[in-house]
Amino acid sequence: MYEGVIQDLIDELGRLPGVGPKGAQRIAFHLLAADPADVRRLADVLIEVKAKARFCVVCGNVSEEETCRICADPRRDPALICVVEESKDVVAIERTREFRGRYHVLGGAISPLEGIGPEQLRIRELIARLNDDTVTEIILATDPNIEGDATAAYLTRMLRPMGLQVTRLASGLPVGGDLEYADEVTLGRAFAGRRNAGD
Amino acid sequence: MYEGVIQDLIDELGRLPGVGPKGAQRIAFHLLAADPADVRRLADVLIEVKAKARFCVVCGNVSEEETCRICADPRRDPALICVVEESKDVVAIERTREFRGRYHVLGGAISPLEGIGPEQLRIRELIARLNDDTVTEIILATDPNIEGDATAAYLTRMLRPMGLQVTRLASGLPVGGDLEYADEVTLGRAFAGRRNAGD
Repeated sequence: MYEGVIQDLIDELGRLPGVGPKGAQRIAFHLLAADPADVRRLADVLIEVKAKARFCVVCGNVSEEETCRICADPRRDPALICVVEESKDVVAIERTREFRGRYHVLGGAISPLEGIGPEQLRIRELIARLNDDTVTEIILATDPNIEGDATAAYLTRMLRPMGLQVTRLASGLPVGGDLEYADEVTLGRAFAGRRNAGD
Repeated sequence: MYEGVIQDLIDELGRLPGVGPKGAQRIAFHLLAADPADVRRLADVLIEVKAKARFCVVCGNVSEEETCRICADPRRDPALICVVEESKDVVAIERTREFRGRYHVLGGAISPLEGIGPEQLRIRELIARLNDDTVTEIILATDPNIEGDATAAYLTRMLRPMGLQVTRLASGLPVGGDLEYADEVTLGRAFAGRRNAGD
């Protein structure tokens, strides 16, 4: 046990996800030795983020304004909505520069084990966005795992009867990967999704 | 890239030791979803630790007062000084409840590669503590690695001529460990330090 406030800091840091007791101690000693202005900046940004950050009223992405930058951008194609689980998925897709439509952040995936059903996700808000026939295609970009697949299947069953094109991101061998080391499920999907060579 | 303050938070968190970009993003989203009071507490303790934490004027251990709790405790034997590299070593040794003397924190170990020589460590302060013949034994508890051993050797050469008993923590097989998996240096030290069975 350290004295008073030093132990308090280690305790608080140890509550953060992915930071164990050793990591918390290491960060605490780093901060003890750091420039006070740097530590002040971290403290300020913590306060500021709680004051400013919220969720876009349209898509549910994390944002500083009522409407996020992507939803507010008139150059983004309003006919395409890419459905993702989390805000970090938006960032990952934006990094590819492949997609010029808009997003919808569900806030998770269907997971009976964790007690998350469709009603805990932002599905009602997604349906509300489809009222005026602007949207023509929904791209399901949930994670390629059991929960993501279940969520995609649920949304497909719900959206197809509405006359929308519903697509799912391709699953298969990662580019730059080694076939030999691919797990069997990925390899199986790569077979199932095989295309004519040269396409 | 996230919007404004959210990216600022991820950047600040990513500067902490042991927190990579993914970890920073994970912590940021955890904080976004956390109770504002919890985030406030973390921010407050960051400010407080920089205002309050300092180093004990006697032993160099991290402290809230001019003199740390251990140096200020009259029940601690002033004849024994255990020399360690860092404050976290004090905490580790205190946890054993084996040692009832006092400490001296060097603030590192001799490392020519990192440009740390004896003059960068709190060795002068250690010598100053030996002036009045109160101290009879110095226990060298630097890390059992190249830098720690070099530091212990340097201190031994300096302290032995002063008529002090100078000891070094035993090095050998960790308790509960598996001989088969011990590295060769540890195993070699365990041989060199072997004692009569039953002692």
